This record gives sequence, structure tokens and C-alpha cells, in this order.
Amino acid sequence: MQTTTRERLISLLSDSDDYISGQKLSEIIGCSRTAVWKHIEELRKEGYVVEAVQKRGYRITVRPNNLHPGEIKNHLNTEKIGQVVHFENTVTSTQEIAHKHALNGAEEGTIIIADEQTVGRGRLGRAWHSPKGSGVWMSIILRPNIPPQKAPQLTLLAAVSVVQGIEEVTGLSAQIKWPNDILIDGKKVVGILTELQAEADRVNSVIIGIGINVNTPKEAFPKDIETIATSLKVEKGEEIERAYLVRAIMEKMEKLYHIYLEHGFAPIKLMWESSAASLGKRVRVRTITGELYGKAQGITEEGVLLVEDDEGTVHRVYSADIELPQKS
Amino acid sequence: MQTTTRERLISLLSDSDDYISGQKLSEIIGCSRTAVWKHIEELRKEGYVVEAVQKRGYRITVRPNNLHPGEIKNHLNTEKIGQVVHFENTVTSTQEIAHKHALNGAEEGTIIIADEQTVGRGRLGRAWHSPKGSGVWMSIILRPNIPPQKAPQLTLLAAVSVVQGIEEVTGLSAQIKWPNDILIDGKKVVGILTELQAEADRVNSVIIGIGINVNTPKEAFPKDIETIATSLKVEKGEEIERAYLVRAIMEKMEKLYHIYLEHGFAPIKLMWESSAASLGKRVRVRTITGELYGKAQGITEEGVLLVEDDEGTVHRVYSADIELPQKS
Repeated sequence: MQTTTRERLISLLSDSDDYISGQKLSEIIGCSRTAVWKHIEELRKEGYVVEAVQKRGYRITVRPNNLHPGEIKNHLNTEKIGQVVHFENTVTSTQEIAHKHALNGAEEGTIIIADEQTVGRGRLGRAWHSPKGSGVWMSIILRPNIPPQKAPQLTLLAAVSVVQGIEEVTGLSAQIKWPNDILIDGKKVVGILTELQAEADRVNSVIIGIGINVNTPKEAFPKDIETIATSLKVEKGEEIERAYLVRAIMEKMEKLYHIYLEHGFAPIKLMWESSAASLGKRVRVRTITGELYGKAQGITEEGVLLVEDDEGTVHRVYSADIELPQKS
Repeated sequence: MQTTTRERLISLLSDSDDYISGQKLSEIIGCSRTAVWKHIEELRKEGYVVEAVQKRGYRITVRPNNLHPGEIKNHLNTEKIGQVVHFENTVTSTQEIAHKHALNGAEEGTIIIADEQTVGRGRLGRAWHSPKGSGVWMSIILRPNIPPQKAPQLTLLAAVSVVQGIEEVTGLSAQIKWPNDILIDGKKVVGILTELQAEADRVNSVIIGIGINVNTPKEAFPKDIETIATSLKVEKGEEIERAYLVRAIMEKMEKLYHIYLEHGFAPIKLMWESSAASLGKRVRVRTITGELYGKAQGITEEGVLLVEDDEGTVHRVYSADIELPQKS
């Protein structure tokens, strides 16, 4: 676990309702009072309002809605996931950066998170709209000892974690649309992109990208997606604290990942099915080779979607876009 | 196709039995006579003997046994594989470098090749002995549109290419030991390591690492592998030109890869089986979970090994080390 002075400072000031003196902060953190003062100046530049009262010390009164590692790691109750956080204001794509960290041996659970992506990407090389300050754009590095064909299971595991995290933080109930979208009220609020670095028969790292529209205002969605996309703020009617949401998702994911490593995919599958938007419904399935209409029956142990067509034949769908029936 | 001045120079001088004047070289290549002269000086430093005769010009009389891109690409009869060559004298591992090139969008068919690897690696994170100047240590980037579970097929395709290339250049007959070794007379001469960058349901790039003991003298093998490893030179009794071997393998691989993309794995499977060392024999199979003895029956369409135990049960083996029966 790497903890920087800045992270310690945010944590100490967040945990105290009262003022903490510069002297005390410098003792606990183990740096000079001048260093403490400099870090507090930096926090102010980042949008924190830090009251300083003579003979009493410092107190945070306003926190910006940011994704600073100190905010994410403050009281984060995990052993691995999110214990190393690489935060950047602007990146091309957190997946790209996570791939490089993974190649360089990053620890399992490392996350890469950014306030803005300039070339955010989704499945099949599609673009993912990632405007500054309003979303959670992050990538998580896992290193499970599984063959590549089991990797789709981790997309489903991640989806369940996100649904649970959203519910904890906002109370909103979200549904999963196979394979990698999360919807609220039929509109997309989260996309998940699972990528691998692997040998032919063994995964070296799984890089799970999660993009969440958190505080995007309704009018900020591009025209071509405004009818199919939404944000947590739009649905909830209030601003959501992003660091709290990330923390909740990390904690849910770590619990599910432990279950997965110990007991396999079966228990995750049950949870996934209970949040699935498509199961039992008539869906339109578009694959590279063509289209298929039928009833989504369920998923297999490998995360493959089973679709029964009108003649009763069951098709195994590995990769596709699914359209759900329109609401009537 | 990227062709450097140096590559052009090697190609021109190689194709001519006669001298070529500096003037003519500079006209064909499109650079100054001084530049030609400087490049020739560089070639000499690399071990080429270049005769220079006044009023006649230059001629290569001795070529070093090197892996210069100019040597590899000279008369290379492929469209993609090997048309972009990144050569380095010393690298940690060509796989590591190929991964970075692949992330940065390297073209299909790009190869990374080195004269020496300091941290060459094999399957399951094992080390691969890659001494300077005596082997072929290379990685090839392919971008087939396949799901990750089909990637083992490309290990088998690469193995067939290498067997065919070795046969063309040396006349030696090699056998493939599932999944990724090539043997001559029961001793290992080539290892193949297939790695992926992929989405959960689609491969972005397959990086095929091929390590060949080419001119390693018998006494140069470390003690712990001298009884199980050999080199082409040891088996053939003469030095092998490495660039020629690489070229032959690239050409075989490109042909097989075209067949694979057009007709799928079935024709490759047939060729693989005809070179397989283990099929029909009793083998010992060591997996992560345990051991198994039985008869190697064949491989499936996905490249999975089928082993029938003494009770007649057929096991599907995804990842394992195979021991062949000792010669009697």
C-alpha cells in the first residue's frame, strides 16, 4: 500500500470534526510544518476550502467533488482493489495507461482513474464520451489465474459490483444488459470494457474499464446519445460524490472477486441473473455475421448468452449487441 | 512497407555479383555519395567485408551471420509478415517489446527480433536461455479477428511454420510436442510462446514469440538443459544462416495464415498432426491440478489435447507439460 503525504493529510483532516494543529499534523505525518503548509496550499488550489485558525490549526470545510487518491482511499475497506490509485486529470484512455502499468508489473488491484478521457473507448473499438469532471473513468488491473476463455466472467462480475455500488451510494436500482452495459430506466449509465493480456492458455492480467456517467447534466449528452444515455445525477436528481461511488464499487468488487476465486463463477452468475435486464425477454441480437431474434434464456458458466429462436433452437452468443424490447 | 537506406544498400549489393559504383548507388537510393560511403562504413563495423575498387565501386564479399532487417527483408516473399522488422542487438525480451509495439498500433506482420535476450521468457513465466549471436529470438504481431479462446490455434500454426522453415533451410525433420515445443531427435530446439492483447470476446493482437537454438555449440548449453536441448547446428553439423531461416519461416507462416483466415483451422490441424511427436503415444501429462497418464489421441478444433486414460476416459487438456516416452 502506497500512501502519499497528501493522502494522509486528506485522511487526517477528513476524520476530524475539530481543527488539527500544523504541529500535530507534521508529527503524525512525519514531515516539516512548512511541508504541511505547502500541501494545504495545494489542496486549496484543488478546490478544498481549508480553514486555518491561529492556535487551533486547520479544518476542511468544503471538499471538491474530485477523484483524488486521498479521497478514494480514505476509509477504503479493501485489501487489494483500489489500494494503489493512479489519478490523472486528463488521459487519452485509462485502459491504455492501465495496459502499460500491467505490462510493467503493476500489483493486482491497481486502479487508474482520470477526470477526463480524450480518447475514451468502449467495446469493439467504439468511442466512449468521457467529459471532464462529471464522470468516473477508471481501469482496474486484476491477475486471476484463469484461461482467457473465462475472462468474460469478469465483465459480469464487474457489472454486479457496479450495480451494487450504485445502489449503496444512490439508492437507485440499475439493470445489466448483456454483456457490458448498465441501464437505469432503460437508459445507459455505465459501460464496461474488459481487456486481457494473456498467454494462449493463461491470463496475465485482466484490465476492467468502467465508465460511469455520474454528474453529467441532461443537456450535456451529445445529440446522438441523449435519448439512450443518462447519468446518476439525472436519475437521482442530485449531485453524487464520485470518490464515495468509486470506493463503494471497489469494496463490492473485492468481495465478489474473493467469492469468485474461492467458489468459481456459479454464485456470481446467480447475482448477475438477478440484475439482468434481458433475461426472459424477446431480444434482437446483432453479431458480426448477422441478426437473430429470440428469447434471452440465460448465460452459461462461461458468460455466453443463450438465445432461443422461434423454431426452438438455442443459440450460443459469444459477442453481440443486444436490443431490448421498446417500452410500451 | 518501410525500407531504410541501409536495407536498400544491402539488397542492391547482395543482388549484384559485380561491383556497383558509389554514383549509381547514390542515384538508385536517392542519397548523396557521402551518405553511401558512411553507410558502407557502418556495414563494415557490423562485420560485412565490402571491397571498394576505384572506378568500379563496391562489392560485398563476406556477409556476417546477422539478423539485420536488410538481410531478413532481402527477397522476402511476403505481403505482411516480416515487412516491418525491428531489430535490436540486446533486449530484455522481444515479447515485452512486441507488446508495446502492439499497444501502439503496430501493423499486422511486424516482427521484433534481437541478437540477444537478457530476460527471455517461455510459457508460464519460465526463463528462456537466449545467448548472443547464436539464436533466433523473435516476436511476430498478428491481428486476426478471432475470440481469445481460439488463440491456441495460432501456437499450432506457428509450430507448423517453423517445422516447414527448418526443413527448407536445413533439410532436418522436426517434430512438434504439444503445445509449444519443437524437437529434433527428441531434444528441444524451438520454443513458442503465444500471448494476447484482447477484449473479453475479441483479440486485438496475438504476439507469437519464437525462440530457436540455431548455431548454439553443444558445449554452450547450460548443464541443466544440455541433455534435453539441442541446436540446428549441432544436429546438422554446420552453421546455419539465421536471416535465411527467419525468411523461410515468415514465408511459410504467411501462407499458413492466409489458409487459416480463409478456411479456418481444419487444414492447419491436419498439417500439425502430421508433424506431431506425441500423437498415438503414451504420455505423462502434468497440469496445475495433477498428473495424468494416457494415450495422446489428437487435438480438437480449438487446439485442446485429447488424452485417453487407462479406464478409457478421454480428458481435454487445455494447458500442461507433456512428457513423451523415453527412447528405448
